[in-house]
This record gives sequence, C-alpha cells and structure tokens, in this order.
Amino acid sequence: MDITFLGTASAYPTPTRGVSCTVFRTDSVCWLFDCGEGSQTQLMRSQLKASKIYKIFISHLHGDHVFGLPGLLCTISQNKRRNKPVDIYGPVGLRKLLRINLQLSRTQLEFDYTVHELQTLDHEYPADWQSWPVNHISDEDLHPNETPGTTIVPDSNNILHLFEDDEFIVTSVWTKHRIPSYGFIIEEKSRPGTLDVSILVSKGVPIGPLYGKIKSGETITLENGTVIKPEDVVGPPIKGRKVIIMGDSTDSWNLKHIGQDADVLIHEATLENSLSEKCIENGHSTPEMVAKLAKSLNVKQLILTHFSQRYKPLSCQLKEGDDSVQTLLNEAEAILGTGSVICAEDFMVYNVARNK
Amino acid sequence: MDITFLGTASAYPTPTRGVSCTVFRTDSVCWLFDCGEGSQTQLMRSQLKASKIYKIFISHLHGDHVFGLPGLLCTISQNKRRNKPVDIYGPVGLRKLLRINLQLSRTQLEFDYTVHELQTLDHEYPADWQSWPVNHISDEDLHPNETPGTTIVPDSNNILHLFEDDEFIVTSVWTKHRIPSYGFIIEEKSRPGTLDVSILVSKGVPIGPLYGKIKSGETITLENGTVIKPEDVVGPPIKGRKVIIMGDSTDSWNLKHIGQDADVLIHEATLENSLSEKCIENGHSTPEMVAKLAKSLNVKQLILTHFSQRYKPLSCQLKEGDDSVQTLLNEAEAILGTGSVICAEDFMVYNVARNK
Ligand SMILES: [Zn+2]
Ligand SMILES: [Zn+2]
Ligand SMILES: [Zn+2]
Ligand SMILES: [Zn+2]
Repeated sequence: MDITFLGTASAYPTPTRGVSCTVFRTDSVCWLFDCGEGSQTQLMRSQLKASKIYKIFISHLHGDHVFGLPGLLCTISQNKRRNKPVDIYGPVGLRKLLRINLQLSRTQLEFDYTVHELQTLDHEYPADWQSWPVNHISDEDLHPNETPGTTIVPDSNNILHLFEDDEFIVTSVWTKHRIPSYGFIIEEKSRPGTLDVSILVSKGVPIGPLYGKIKSGETITLENGTVIKPEDVVGPPIKGRKVIIMGDSTDSWNLKHIGQDADVLIHEATLENSLSEKCIENGHSTPEMVAKLAKSLNVKQLILTHFSQRYKPLSCQLKEGDDSVQTLLNEAEAILGTGSVICAEDFMVYNVARNK
Repeated sequence: MDITFLGTASAYPTPTRGVSCTVFRTDSVCWLFDCGEGSQTQLMRSQLKASKIYKIFISHLHGDHVFGLPGLLCTISQNKRRNKPVDIYGPVGLRKLLRINLQLSRTQLEFDYTVHELQTLDHEYPADWQSWPVNHISDEDLHPNETPGTTIVPDSNNILHLFEDDEFIVTSVWTKHRIPSYGFIIEEKSRPGTLDVSILVSKGVPIGPLYGKIKSGETITLENGTVIKPEDVVGPPIKGRKVIIMGDSTDSWNLKHIGQDADVLIHEATLENSLSEKCIENGHSTPEMVAKLAKSLNVKQLILTHFSQRYKPLSCQLKEGDDSVQTLLNEAEAILGTGSVICAEDFMVYNVARNK
C-alpha cells in the first residue's frame, strides 16, 4: 500500500509543484484523490498507470483540485483495452461540471463513468454562498458514457458512507473551507491472522484446502478424530490500516471520531503560523492547527501538502529571500516532535507499512 | 513579432510535447491561440508573461485545445495588478464551457472577460452532429466577470471578421474537422515608409513635429515657401506581415483568397501521408495535404505542428522502432523544397521578419 504525491502546490502550479493530485495504491486498487490541471502529465511522468484508476475522489470544486479531471478521463480513454467503469465522488456540482465539459468537447470515452455527489447540509454552506447563486444541478441529458450516480447524505455523526467492499470501507467528512470541501477516510478491513504451519504439520494436517478453511475461521475434524480450532493455530487478526486524505480545510474536526489512530493523515498546511489570520480567512490551515488535530487523533504519520508557492521544496537550492517548507515542518514538529512529520514533494511515494 | 510554440502534441500530452497552445507576440500585443490542459504551466516555463495576454483564440472545443483555459484565467488573475479585460474568440459553446467552469469552481477574476462566438453555418456541421444533441447555449446568468460577447457570422466569402484596430485585422475561416473548427488570420496593417532624413536636412526642414506630419502623408510648406510632398521624402509604405494560425483541420481551403502570400502558415500535420485515410477520417491533415495548400497560397514559411505521439521531436534520441517528425518534414519538403518547412517543437520561438 503506497501513496504517490503528484501535486503539492496550492492554488496554481509552480516550477517545482503541480496542483493537487494524490494517488492511493495497493495490489488491488488504484485511486486518485483530487485532479488539478496537469495531473495527467504528472501521472505520465510517474511510475503509475492512469488506466488502472477506477475510483476518483474530488475534495471540492476549486479549479486547482478538479480542472484536470475532464482531460484525465480523455487520456485514460485513449487506452482502448480499458473499459471498466469509473466511480467518481465529490461535492454537488461535480456531475454537472464533468457532463458539460465532456459534452461540449464532444468527448466519447471507452468506458462508463458515474458521479456520486456528497450532499452538503444547509448549515455547512458558507455565509456568503447565496450572494452568488449558481445552479449546481445540470438539467441536460446524461453524457452517453454516464450512468446515474447517487447522492450521499451524511449520517447523524456527520459521516458520509461512500462505499464498502471486502477489502475497504471509504467514508468522508465535510470540512470548513471557502466552499464545501470533503476529506476522505480509507479503512482497510482487518485480515485473518497468520497460520502457524508448524503446529498444523505437527497435528498431521495435510497441506491443502483445509489450511484455507481453518484460516477463514472454521473448526475442522481430521479423520483420526483430532479437532483443530482456528484460535489454536491462527494468530490474532491483522489490523487494517487507516489512511486519511483531506482536501482544503481550515477545520477538520469532523474527523474527531472516525479519524482516531489513523496510520497516515495527509492534510494541507498552506501558510505558516504567523499568517494564520490570512490562512483561516482563505479557508486553509497552518502547521500548528494540523499538528494539534493529528495529536488529538493519535495519528502515526502526518504528511503536510498543498503549500503556498512561497515555500520552496526541501530539495531546492534556496535563493536570497526564499522561504522553505522547512518553516512549516518545524512548526508542526514543535507540537508532534522532531522527525515525526513529512512535507510532501511532487513524485514522493510514501509506503504505508503493514500492521504486524 | 514572434511566435512561441508551447504545445505541439495532438490529442494528449507526451513526455516531450504539451497539447495545443501557441503565442503570437509583438511589442504591443500578446495573443494566445488554443489553450490545451497544462498551457499555464508551459507559459510559466517559457519567457512569456501570462498576465500580458489580452486576446485568446480557440480553434475548436476538443479538450486538447480548451481544457487549459479556465485554469489559465485563474492564474492570470493571481496577478492583482492586472485588470484589463480579456477578449476570447471561439466556436459556439465556448461561452457556456467557460461560464460553467468558472461558476462551479467559484472562481472570481481580477478582470472581466468577454466571449465572442463564431457562428457555424448549418452546412458546416458534420453529418452526425444531430446524432448527439448537445445544448451549446447556456441559460445560466452571466459570470460576475463576464460582459456579453458578440456572435460573429461569416460574410459571403466565408470570412469571419473578428476585429480591427490601427495595427491589425484579425479574421477567421471555418475549416473541416470532426467538430466545427476555425483558423485565424492576422494581418498587420502596412506602415508608412521610412523618412529620408538626408533629403529633409538638405531642404532645410528642422528636426521636429514636421517630420511626423510628412511621414503621416501631409504636404508641408516651409517659411521660405519650399513645398515638401511626402512622396518625395518618404519611402514606399512597409507592407504588413500576414500570419495564419490554424486549428485542427482536414480541409483548410477556405483560406484560398484570404491566405494568399502569408508570411507564415502554422498548420497541423498529425499523421504521415501513408496514413491519410485514418488521418482524414479523424479530421486531420497529412504533410502532403498541407504542403499543397501552402504552395497554392504562396506561403513564405510553413510550420507544421500538432503531431501524433508516434513522431518524436527532431531533438530526441530515437530508440528502436521510434518514428521521428523527420518523416513528416520530408513529406512536406518533397513538395515545397528542402529547408523550406519547419516542424515546431515545444518552446520554439519563430521570429517573423519585417518586410523591407
Ligand atoms: Zn486548493
Ligand atoms: Zn480550495
Ligand atoms: Zn487537436
Ligand atoms: Zn480536434
């Protein structure tokens, strides 16, 4: 399980950073989180295969998080062998944005797509939302490749349930930003413990299908009457990992329950602590704000991203008057301890270690 | 007067080429032609200043020519000192595409913009156009930064008159492609000839405002009665240059009159001659098709661009089985003569020499 950072800039691309785009990958899945303009080029320059992407999660509709989505779908579609549908999740309005872009550009895809929209509750809209009324629902026909998507409404704990399969549960929470913005929580289900083969051999269990049965929790009885219970030969279940990938946010406290004990928290830290007023006004977070959140959630690894263009990457030669992300790193580590925080850079790959 | 090529790939970006984007620049203007995804990043990597762009021309609504436009306007807008309005020209549907993208992304610009739409005539639509009915007109309110644009209808010679000022006349022609596509003709107005100062001095004309008057065509009489007529002291008017920048096209013969004697013709050559069937089917041109057009128009300099990803740039180390644009170059020069054609590469700058 690894995470590739393809865009770590805020607002607009810089010579060293693309705009928001992160890829979550395991042996079985490849999911994209935010797709700012130029993401398809960053994907092409990475080791990842765009055609392997089957789920896309958009945190909010600011251009630096979504303007690359139409182009990415076109490019994925160039791969004629790829025809499995894509599921896309994002705030209300995403369906219309994609439909209009694909219709007016007369784009025909080799696969179908579905947009599931996350329903923002009335009190979650910013105060000035109605001062610029925009119609977020399209009354046009569906795009030929579009199958109708669902509208996902938050439950009483403000958790939006996106989907669950035998491997993962993916949920989402609303976070405070200038426009409705969502963070995503990926919970890997725990897996059966490891089988102690030596005990099995000693008890005369032949290698074969019986192993699978025991591992999946079945008690078996051998011909010679020996009864073997799973708990005698299978280790404790291996706890699944929890990865949280947030969009732009100046308040992510909806994570307080669901975010507990996350293995990784990826969160924006756009401006340094001393600029907190401007930062909060723009709907963003400072390292201090995020580090406090990470601490309260008992997060194993905090990774900061979405940096203002004033902060050059650590790998950069600093020129006179240049600021570096080191500033942000220090501020977060002042709360979480030295060496405990990572500042993401484009094309950085973070490996999420398995739980023993 | 120069032309910078920022995207010379067709359909989607490759490791060596961005998608369509070309910048026409003189001392007084900076215009953008087509704006595929990633154009703002290419602009940032060039010597050009995005904030100097005041006119944008979009040939057609395929994603590789327009998906970078919303993002570019956002980034230009980051430059707070920049507030002059932008004029944008393109086919019907462009206004809606831009309005919806900017509205749903809640983008507020530091300047106003106007979209002028080029009216496609019924017979110019592809035969299958109605099989996928799409509404190209937006019934939404204007974007807060949007001032209503005009609809430009072709005249009896199929020429669309976009605008004229004291320096330039810009017109457009419809060209055949899979969807309505337009090429743009920039005609620089001729300028008064050079003043032969030596004659003026010999005739006793004092250096000063009189020079300007004569140069602008006025006959003047000195105090001592000497009459000086412009034609005696001013050389012949300097002929303006003509630059043609086409979009995707498999038939550009609407240029037959207006395109005559162009100084530069920039035209796509997506696939080689032997693939002409597939090329024409996709609405594109082969080098042979374009070279024949250039020859009949008596074009001084033909520049090919918008290459399929199979053709590597001339500057590239070719690997086993790689094709190079040399193939396309040879095919065009077979008709126009060796050394008479240029294959554009990203960041190439072509200087349009003044006419003597
Ligand atoms: Zn952002
Ligand atoms: Zn944002
Ligand atoms: Zn094209
Ligand atoms: Zn096209």
